[in-house]
Amino acid sequence: MTIKISAARLRAFSADALCKAGLEPADAARVADLMTQADLQGSDGHGIIRLLPYVKRIQSGGINLRPKISVVTERPAMALLDGDNAMGHLVMARAAEIAIEKARTCGVAWVGAQHSNHAGPASLYARMALEHDMIGLYFAVGNANHLPPWGGLDMLLSTNPIAVAVPAGEEAPIVLDMATTVAAYGKVKAKAQQGESMPEGWMIDREGKPLLDPKRAAEGFLLPIGGYKGYGLALIVGLLAGTLNSAAMGKQVVDFNADQSTPTNTGQAIMAIDISAFGDVKAFKERVDVVVRDLHNSERMPNVERIWVPGEQSHQKRIDYLRDGVPVAPALFAVLATLATELDIAPLSAE
Amino acid sequence: MTIKISAARLRAFSADALCKAGLEPADAARVADLMTQADLQGSDGHGIIRLLPYVKRIQSGGINLRPKISVVTERPAMALLDGDNAMGHLVMARAAEIAIEKARTCGVAWVGAQHSNHAGPASLYARMALEHDMIGLYFAVGNANHLPPWGGLDMLLSTNPIAVAVPAGEEAPIVLDMATTVAAYGKVKAKAQQGESMPEGWMIDREGKPLLDPKRAAEGFLLPIGGYKGYGLALIVGLLAGTLNSAAMGKQVVDFNADQSTPTNTGQAIMAIDISAFGDVKAFKERVDVVVRDLHNSERMPNVERIWVPGEQSHQKRIDYLRDGVPVAPALFAVLATLATELDIAPLSAE
Repeated sequence: MTIKISAARLRAFSADALCKAGLEPADAARVADLMTQADLQGSDGHGIIRLLPYVKRIQSGGINLRPKISVVTERPAMALLDGDNAMGHLVMARAAEIAIEKARTCGVAWVGAQHSNHAGPASLYARMALEHDMIGLYFAVGNANHLPPWGGLDMLLSTNPIAVAVPAGEEAPIVLDMATTVAAYGKVKAKAQQGESMPEGWMIDREGKPLLDPKRAAEGFLLPIGGYKGYGLALIVGLLAGTLNSAAMGKQVVDFNADQSTPTNTGQAIMAIDISAFGDVKAFKERVDVVVRDLHNSERMPNVERIWVPGEQSHQKRIDYLRDGVPVAPALFAVLATLATELDIAPLSAE
Repeated sequence: MTIKISAARLRAFSADALCKAGLEPADAARVADLMTQADLQGSDGHGIIRLLPYVKRIQSGGINLRPKISVVTERPAMALLDGDNAMGHLVMARAAEIAIEKARTCGVAWVGAQHSNHAGPASLYARMALEHDMIGLYFAVGNANHLPPWGGLDMLLSTNPIAVAVPAGEEAPIVLDMATTVAAYGKVKAKAQQGESMPEGWMIDREGKPLLDPKRAAEGFLLPIGGYKGYGLALIVGLLAGTLNSAAMGKQVVDFNADQSTPTNTGQAIMAIDISAFGDVKAFKERVDVVVRDLHNSERMPNVERIWVPGEQSHQKRIDYLRDGVPVAPALFAVLATLATELDIAPLSAE
């Protein structure tokens, strides 16, 4: 019994709440829009569900409400941004703009960020390259460590995600957005809320045995994809998005669930690749279409209904949710009603 | 009972063989050196073991012996190289040089290649950035498709590897070099040769059931790391290293084991990130050292002797093999003796 709410209403409510909490109106509108884009693509762990934690963090003094996002250092094809502890959405939207601008002249460009914060789903920023006929890549240090080194017990790494967006012609763009762990931690929390057990392979306990009860999540840790390979990927993403930018990595990572006020010094990085630098853009998109169609037309395993290409399910959700509204769970709807009362703003209404 | 052979002898023998097969002496020396570097770091599926297949390919007319490796198009921070069907080592060594040179002024640079060929282990090229205090990233389309889309049966993707090399200070550099499948296909072949069965998780058959007998490898396919995530990664690497460069991808990939003469139009890409563009290089390396030491010092699971950081085992092998010689299996040694007779060159001798 989810409630469906239009993107416009979600956006307006989030902007209202963030503005009332203290963000500048333009900043609140920008963050609200990106949060709503997250919900529209089905990244429901990163949209309106984050509004309450964001407001709590703002109220705890954990976010700079009047940030000066500035370029610390740059070269023709790179820049390092100081996010000045702004909402991460503002920092990474600016980073994406700079990367796209620099890639237009240099062919490719890379922009790293320090003193940023949680910015929502990785794919939001990688996708910003698409309308410029560019490929976007995004790397981030996650905001809580749930992953030990392979064979270890100390949680020194996060689920450090990677996103890559590649434009196609007639087909939907290919958009990969993945944590380097088998499951993102949000999925574990969701299983706990639903009272379900986790499949084997998501988490292990301190003896290395499968951990299936999500309520015991604190006794174990997430498993990286491909065992030691995913550990390596999480480490590399952390070095590129964190260490290279003098942002938090390893022991320095602040658990944003447990600590609402310490600046996180979150590190992220975005890269844009201008397809026109490599040749004809239309021909490239046609080649991508051929790849997508060959994948779709692959013979299938028994009981497999269709072959998916990364990003297709999100693409379909965007179409459906724009038409029908974004599904919001009743429990979340109730939380948002309470928040509206607390902030003294108009409540979110379904219709 | 492996035989240990010095790097110098391996290098000289490979250069001799490649030269006699038809490569220009300088090109033969360059390829032989890179093959030997592969053996020295323990990438033994990519070193001297490839000499016979390379010679066969050259003799079958599958390699251009007088290539003109040229820049098709470039911008300040990118170039697209036409490898002119040269040995891949020559193409990607040149690509790395250009990427490093461009990154020095632009901060980062990306060089793609088309009409290239198998170039040995991915990490060889990512590592070339290290001595310039740069981070190197390498992506390649594998030379045989062993991976279907997730849920599919048509082998449309290869083990498309990723390598990333990050310099450290006092610690060994961090070097990740991984196929996007759980096992590289060479490991399956090795298990077949050794008469051993494969662990569950490497391959599945056409019903989706675990395939454990490596002699039945042709009846099934490799599994991607993290299930659909690894499928997504293999696809993205293929798009970045293949499709973007107008190189082979998907159905166009030539199986270089089955076909010795058709040009492969192999696609690869390399990226260099100049650390000094982001800040003080020494401070960066110190931060990497801290991360490495924190990983090393992590509390360990029962029965785990030490925590490894990606690249450490290769680093240790490089030290050991430079001192003691590279271990060569007797069967391979015999193959190389026959090759020496066929080519009428001095045989490889152990001492």
